[in-house]
Amino acid sequence: MRTHYCGSIDESLIDQTITLCGWVDRRRDHGGVIFLDMRDREGIVQVVFDPDTEEHFERADRVRPEYVLKITGRVRARSPETVNPAMATGAIEVLGKSLEILNEAVTPPFQLDAHTSVGEDVRLKYRYMDLRRPEMQSNLIARSKITYGVRAFLEGEGFLDIETPILTRATPEGARDYLVPSRTHPGEFFALPQSPQLFKQLLMVAGFDRYYQIARCFRDEDLRADRQPEFTQIDIETSFLEERDVMDITERMVKSLFQDHLGVTLPDFPHMSWHEAMDRYGSDKPDLRIDLELVSISDLMQEVDFKVFSGPAKDPEGRVAALCVPGGATLSRKDIDGYTKFVSIYGARGLAWVKVNDRAAGVSGLQSPILKFMPDAVVEQLLERLGAADGDIIFFGADKARVVNEALGALRIKVAEDLGRVSDDWKPLWVVDFPMFENDADGDLTPLHHPFTAPACDVETLKADPANALSRAYDMVLNGSEIGGGSIRIHDQVMQQAVFDLLGIGPEEAEEKFGFLLSALQYGAPPHGGLAFGLDRLITLMVGGHSIRDVIAFPKTQSAHCVMTDAPGEVSPAQLKELNIRLRGSDKKPADDSNA
Amino acid sequence: MRTHYCGSIDESLIDQTITLCGWVDRRRDHGGVIFLDMRDREGIVQVVFDPDTEEHFERADRVRPEYVLKITGRVRARSPETVNPAMATGAIEVLGKSLEILNEAVTPPFQLDAHTSVGEDVRLKYRYMDLRRPEMQSNLIARSKITYGVRAFLEGEGFLDIETPILTRATPEGARDYLVPSRTHPGEFFALPQSPQLFKQLLMVAGFDRYYQIARCFRDEDLRADRQPEFTQIDIETSFLEERDVMDITERMVKSLFQDHLGVTLPDFPHMSWHEAMDRYGSDKPDLRIDLELVSISDLMQEVDFKVFSGPAKDPEGRVAALCVPGGATLSRKDIDGYTKFVSIYGARGLAWVKVNDRAAGVSGLQSPILKFMPDAVVEQLLERLGAADGDIIFFGADKARVVNEALGALRIKVAEDLGRVSDDWKPLWVVDFPMFENDADGDLTPLHHPFTAPACDVETLKADPANALSRAYDMVLNGSEIGGGSIRIHDQVMQQAVFDLLGIGPEEAEEKFGFLLSALQYGAPPHGGLAFGLDRLITLMVGGHSIRDVIAFPKTQSAHCVMTDAPGEVSPAQLKELNIRLRGSDKKPADDSNA
Repeated sequence: MRTHYCGSIDESLIDQTITLCGWVDRRRDHGGVIFLDMRDREGIVQVVFDPDTEEHFERADRVRPEYVLKITGRVRARSPETVNPAMATGAIEVLGKSLEILNEAVTPPFQLDAHTSVGEDVRLKYRYMDLRRPEMQSNLIARSKITYGVRAFLEGEGFLDIETPILTRATPEGARDYLVPSRTHPGEFFALPQSPQLFKQLLMVAGFDRYYQIARCFRDEDLRADRQPEFTQIDIETSFLEERDVMDITERMVKSLFQDHLGVTLPDFPHMSWHEAMDRYGSDKPDLRIDLELVSISDLMQEVDFKVFSGPAKDPEGRVAALCVPGGATLSRKDIDGYTKFVSIYGARGLAWVKVNDRAAGVSGLQSPILKFMPDAVVEQLLERLGAADGDIIFFGADKARVVNEALGALRIKVAEDLGRVSDDWKPLWVVDFPMFENDADGDLTPLHHPFTAPACDVETLKADPANALSRAYDMVLNGSEIGGGSIRIHDQVMQQAVFDLLGIGPEEAEEKFGFLLSALQYGAPPHGGLAFGLDRLITLMVGGHSIRDVIAFPKTQSAHCVMTDAPGEVSPAQLKELNIRLRGSDKKPADDSNA
Repeated sequence: MRTHYCGSIDESLIDQTITLCGWVDRRRDHGGVIFLDMRDREGIVQVVFDPDTEEHFERADRVRPEYVLKITGRVRARSPETVNPAMATGAIEVLGKSLEILNEAVTPPFQLDAHTSVGEDVRLKYRYMDLRRPEMQSNLIARSKITYGVRAFLEGEGFLDIETPILTRATPEGARDYLVPSRTHPGEFFALPQSPQLFKQLLMVAGFDRYYQIARCFRDEDLRADRQPEFTQIDIETSFLEERDVMDITERMVKSLFQDHLGVTLPDFPHMSWHEAMDRYGSDKPDLRIDLELVSISDLMQEVDFKVFSGPAKDPEGRVAALCVPGGATLSRKDIDGYTKFVSIYGARGLAWVKVNDRAAGVSGLQSPILKFMPDAVVEQLLERLGAADGDIIFFGADKARVVNEALGALRIKVAEDLGRVSDDWKPLWVVDFPMFENDADGDLTPLHHPFTAPACDVETLKADPANALSRAYDMVLNGSEIGGGSIRIHDQVMQQAVFDLLGIGPEEAEEKFGFLLSALQYGAPPHGGLAFGLDRLITLMVGGHSIRDVIAFPKTQSAHCVMTDAPGEVSPAQLKELNIRLRGSDKKPADDSNA
């Protein structure tokens, strides 16, 4: 029906007759003529109707925002005083010759350019309207292009796109599964996959060598900020490659995406050990756009007369660390109280601080509630180690290492954001040398990644000192977000059983849960490993979105509700009977549909 | 770890040292040396180990089928008498220098090259072994390449890849939904989509103009031959295009796939009306590789003294048709009895026939149990119309038109297969001009496609004579399989309500089921339409597979069971409690896991 997209009209088309199809973005009368801003997915162009077009002018007079039109007209240059440099098509306009109304529209539930005036629930209910906003059009166009870029890159590297089942067995990621009752196997349930982890390992056992899939994954979790019940993963697995090979391929992939879609040349990704990341940034996904670092001062605080510091300093599991913030001396008492509350979220029982007003004046040039507890020599050593200068503030954390890292790691980001100290760069890195295990609340070992991750040592070493064993895992981190994570997997049945043993998964439970994988490992499993990227998060970062909901066409609310279709919904008793289930009592409660 | 794939070694590499990783396909001793056929996804190559490689020779002596090896060696030409022209790498071999066993393998559950000696259930249980067969490797590699070809084509045509939800509301295709209990909305359920139909229409309302998705779809049906509970669709939707545009784009897409992946240049696809297809082939997906046609003879049979024919010939809903099969006079009485039983599956109450032994001898040259009922002049007209020749057999159908079409349509294919009359060509076509509605068993109108299909007439004409209204639907048929189907959709709310009314869907039910779509049609819906291809079926046809299970990595059995992972499975009472459901009684029955 059309010859061009609205957004593609430019000066090269002047004097040509073109046909456009699209939506009325704005309509206004001015000086006896009618101006229509016509919109389609590629952009907006101005169309002018003169009264001499008769019935077409009359139709133009009748149209309202969001009417669907087909317009034929001639492209002409705008007069110099009406050129609009803020508009991509602002140098030209279309002189309308004919106008056909393809469909009418009732008054929209909100004006597209005033979408912030309504709540997100209204925009989600009328998502097909919200998606008309140029920003959402551009986000989803970018998502499509970037996703295709991922495929093109991986195809070029010899990867095969192989689909794995959605109706499957419970998978081992440990979050809650979505379940699907089986009609043909009464009393039994499928689980929706939390990832294709086991299937991709089986594809390696099957010899496909290089696999990828843009895979839908499902987790029935209480949604923390910016999670969705279903999300999309770039899932990659390879055989006969080492860590460095997998990291090389995927690093080149991300670099090519940034080059092709943002024109950004990313630097080579530095590698940082998990221990170093925790020490310096208090996080396993450090945001390197921020030049602040945690500095360990446990050694200085062993003997101070301040138990809050000396206790953790002497505790093998404790840590005392400082965060020096240049320019932070301007923070008010109220600011500092706010930060004290902020770190308490992470379990910190207080937030000690020192302002450096006049470094040259020694201790007397400092301002702090805690200085009185410390010998001047210690204070001097502290300032020296931190490189503190006039105008700085120093924050302290002293507790179990985990609390200090989480609290100061989060404070580091918060303060940097507040003081405008987050650079505009892209800062990727690899975090490597993860511990194999961590201790859960009961002190039992749990896998830091998942139980198929290979250790960086042999079976005997692993068994002898599991707490200090490192894994062959690697995470790709960008600007403080973990965008991908992976590992070399265990391909040896004896090693797999040893890891299960350490995790307290006995042979019976292992057989019950992962029997088919253990069996597959017997029949000639190749060395293999891979990685999975969170596609929603990666795209959100690349388009500068605020939430993954900005790059998902039809997202759900925090209570896992689709406001537009009103899913989930009730089903008939006959359907339930066929599925061999019934509802439990009548304890149905109204649910909360609010968003974060 | 490797320098080359096994299957990529050729004479250009002679005298080079290479490293391979892969599986032992075969191992044999001969003349004091050891021959290993090494296999990976690209093929097989022969490796020879001499005793002078010492520990490597000893290891080679120890390996068994399906061991995983890393081998380094030198490529050399085979001596002329040992060249194997049946093998892609048969002109060369690798003289092994070193061998590393990467993993061992216990005795496989079946030999890969003798996979037909075990049942499909065994192969599905050890699917990771079955997938190692070169045929399955090649099928899934082809699937990956063809799927990427689809994407590349559609990207080039300006289509956007947009993901739609898997956890959604019941969709309108009419098959049984898979349901997912909601934990956060007690008593409510998500449905897995039978197709993204409504979401893709909403994406058009949202202005994305050209959408595609390789989409997973779900139907909880009693699986007829060669269906799967989850299957994959190439889903396409466009705005501002007419039927011919959608058909043009998708025809070019399929042509490009055949050109690029099979080297086959498909002809332009002929268009055939639904009525013509039913008349000539008794099917809405005619297999044009077969040159046999149904010929209507109702007019000839009005007055014959044979009620079996004259009754349907006079019935406005009846049909009398003949199928003339060249060379069929050789069929035995037993063959014909078999066909009589075959057509009874489709409701035919018998199968009349005439053998043409000597056309020149007139009626006396014919052999048939029914000739006695017909005047010679009618028989002569019949032979004339059918162009019957010596050696032909003519089969007859006389009943309600639907029964005749189904029975003779199926017989046409069955006889052609038995007599080797199916050509080796690719025979695509478009079937168009479908009726809007058909009558269900109760005589009520049901949509031939789905209730969003646009009629080819205006609202008044549709209401006046719905039974004769045609739709704007189109099906792509290839070699007797419907590989794609689509239509222009209704974009007008009044028309949509009229169709719902005709289907007996009242305003309340329409609002309850499709309220969000009806609402969207109010806010400026563009004219739109699309098409969906069954990807599994298309790939199966292209690779010459017997079943869609040949092109799906991890398929399920006919009872929707995954033999490998043993999904579905039992879940804990705690999980059910969280989901607010309980099992109905203890009427759990063992399920049948056999395959078709």
